[in-house]
Amino acid sequence: MKLYTYWRSQAAFRVRIALRLKGQTPEKITLDLLKGDQFDPAYRALNAEAVVPTLIDGEGSPLVQSLAILEYLDETYPDPPLLPSDPRGRAHARALAQITAMDAHPFIVPRVRKYLQERFDFGNDAVDEWVRHWLDAASHTVEELLARDPRTGRFCVGNEPTVADICLVAHLASCKLFGAREASAYNTAGRIYETCMALEAFAAEHPLRQPDAPKI
Amino acid sequence: MKLYTYWRSQAAFRVRIALRLKGQTPEKITLDLLKGDQFDPAYRALNAEAVVPTLIDGEGSPLVQSLAILEYLDETYPDPPLLPSDPRGRAHARALAQITAMDAHPFIVPRVRKYLQERFDFGNDAVDEWVRHWLDAASHTVEELLARDPRTGRFCVGNEPTVADICLVAHLASCKLFGAREASAYNTAGRIYETCMALEAFAAEHPLRQPDAPKI
Repeated sequence: MKLYTYWRSQAAFRVRIALRLKGQTPEKITLDLLKGDQFDPAYRALNAEAVVPTLIDGEGSPLVQSLAILEYLDETYPDPPLLPSDPRGRAHARALAQITAMDAHPFIVPRVRKYLQERFDFGNDAVDEWVRHWLDAASHTVEELLARDPRTGRFCVGNEPTVADICLVAHLASCKLFGAREASAYNTAGRIYETCMALEAFAAEHPLRQPDAPKI
Repeated sequence: MKLYTYWRSQAAFRVRIALRLKGQTPEKITLDLLKGDQFDPAYRALNAEAVVPTLIDGEGSPLVQSLAILEYLDETYPDPPLLPSDPRGRAHARALAQITAMDAHPFIVPRVRKYLQERFDFGNDAVDEWVRHWLDAASHTVEELLARDPRTGRFCVGNEPTVADICLVAHLASCKLFGAREASAYNTAGRIYETCMALEAFAAEHPLRQPDAPKI
């Protein structure tokens, strides 16, 4: 198994956590998205969107799109499950995941920041404000949902980690890296973040612990 | 069953198609997102993000986030399936769906257009350019993938409609509504769009055939 990854990518972080939870240890191939490694034709043959992550699992076509990869891993390596067993619980876990992954993360990726800078003359401060606005909005919504839903347990849905926790942790890690409000600002989401980060599968795959992360 | 919907919402269109394919005929409750109906506290109690769609299916909490709802419908009403049967085919269908639903659609929704206008002084032309840029980019990627993948059949993955077709059709309908390049500009995606629109489940739920659509 091979994973194409970038240290700061929230989408790659999700997949790294899922792989660890499933006991898989892929070879990591790092791309520098700020340098444009993703536009290399050899990579674009694997990933037409020129984004990370891409997962190669044996023969067959490359796997792309982080949430599709999480579902694939859950179907192919079912133990431990990344979703609750009942359809409504599964829908809740997926919806929580999608609030951060679909309604915040798309706004903060390199191609979007670059487009705002190059086409609409956004300066660094405006880009930062843009990024933090969407990160904070999603954190706020997820906190509200977690705080009021009786299904919230040690983790987002019950007492085992699901795709909701994977996406929440990746989101809150981005919040810190981009200067948005951090996990500690949110009672429930912050508690769940800490619960997750006490697990090696989450902690060991943190962006700052990746081989291509900047040395601080 | 009750569906909270808005005629032009791409996410609501996805769910409307899936419900029709599954033979479900929910009561439709329309919100006017441009007037701000979604911020009504009674609606926000159902949908903390203040977005559409929301599906109420019997007792239990409201279902939110369109892709999570598609999966819920597929698990709860399995016939006909909205995903291929093999994990890699399912991953491919989900990835195609997510390229439009995650990497284009989030950029065009009312709250984003409004934020660009109110906070960053985007005029109407700039907003239009922004919207079309992301719609066209996703169309281009999906066309490239469909054109080169041997799994492409009458539909995006094989010969039955899946979540990939639902998201493609909803995306291409938005392209037309927002003045981006239309379905006919894409050989493979355009052909699949026409194949889908020949089915009542897709055609009858088109935005312009909704009760709250503008009369033209």
